[in-house]
Amino acid sequence: MSNDAISRIALELSRLPGIGRKSAQRLAYHIVSMPEEDVRTLASTLWNGRKAVRFCPVCFNYTEEEQCAVCSDETRHNGQICVVREPRDAAAIERMHDYRGLYHVLGGTLSPMNGIGPDDLRIRELLQRLDDSINEVIIATNPDIEGEATAAYLARLIKPLGIRVTRIAHGVPIGGDLEYTDEVTLSKALEGRREM
Amino acid sequence: MSNDAISRIALELSRLPGIGRKSAQRLAYHIVSMPEEDVRTLASTLWNGRKAVRFCPVCFNYTEEEQCAVCSDETRHNGQICVVREPRDAAAIERMHDYRGLYHVLGGTLSPMNGIGPDDLRIRELLQRLDDSINEVIIATNPDIEGEATAAYLARLIKPLGIRVTRIAHGVPIGGDLEYTDEVTLSKALEGRREM
Repeated sequence: MSNDAISRIALELSRLPGIGRKSAQRLAYHIVSMPEEDVRTLASTLWNGRKAVRFCPVCFNYTEEEQCAVCSDETRHNGQICVVREPRDAAAIERMHDYRGLYHVLGGTLSPMNGIGPDDLRIRELLQRLDDSINEVIIATNPDIEGEATAAYLARLIKPLGIRVTRIAHGVPIGGDLEYTDEVTLSKALEGRREM
Repeated sequence: MSNDAISRIALELSRLPGIGRKSAQRLAYHIVSMPEEDVRTLASTLWNGRKAVRFCPVCFNYTEEEQCAVCSDETRHNGQICVVREPRDAAAIERMHDYRGLYHVLGGTLSPMNGIGPDDLRIRELLQRLDDSINEVIIATNPDIEGEATAAYLARLIKPLGIRVTRIAHGVPIGGDLEYTDEVTLSKALEGRREM
């Protein structure tokens, strides 16, 4: 059987996270059975979407504009910066419609085991944002070992600058993932933040 | 947050079978974080793969050639045609490297509930293939209600032509556990018992 195109599709899909060899093959069979027009739409959405997305030069969240919607919204410049690991964590916090300040996306967390040190994250860029207009940095990294270590590291750097540093409460279950936390829990976690 | 490209990607991915809203969003965030070159490869593999695949005009399996590799292989014309529901069922049988005959892909199974009748499947095309060179039709539709009904329907059509019609055996899967086998399968296994 000449399944080469199907195998090539399955191979590409299996590179994506959470898609195993079997699912990739099933998806590949589905894709070649789809109307050509639908596959064209799928493929061009992936490619055009990827091309459209860039980093906001201020907070390093994803955006399709010069600056992201939060940074370019004057009403969000309320003196608070919420520090997250990934863009999708910022998206999770936005979904609860409760937080009205700014973000800063680190692009990861400190992980000596994986060779990720402070210079690999956007920590210098965060420090450069901490002018007189900022009075609180809320650290919303995940409540896991790396997230906590990163939070402690940032607190040590920022508190000497006379800026309040807070940590979201451990309403987020330990070992859980910020992205999959429901809005109410997230809201509680933000509300219960404490001095570091 | 201007996540439109990400939402568009997530929406397209969530149309695929087995990918829910959350997984689609997670995949979309992953895709916009991938190097542009890798997304270009993924998108073009999907689109070029889909364009390359057509139906074999003889057996209706997927192929990228005029005829599929099985139909165009003279050594496979051994008088047997194995009837399956989908191309991926033929692929499963090919993977065992044991079957040396031809295939016929129905493109579905009879399902009055879903309005799928004989004219919606490639049954007429199967009958047209049943010349003097064919001496056995092996029906390998799934052992579910629709697969059994389709098998019975085909047997009624083909047996009067003087061609042997067989059905793949149903029973306890190798490596399976008798205790955890459902009653219907056990019943089929007992019914299909053979001399040792």
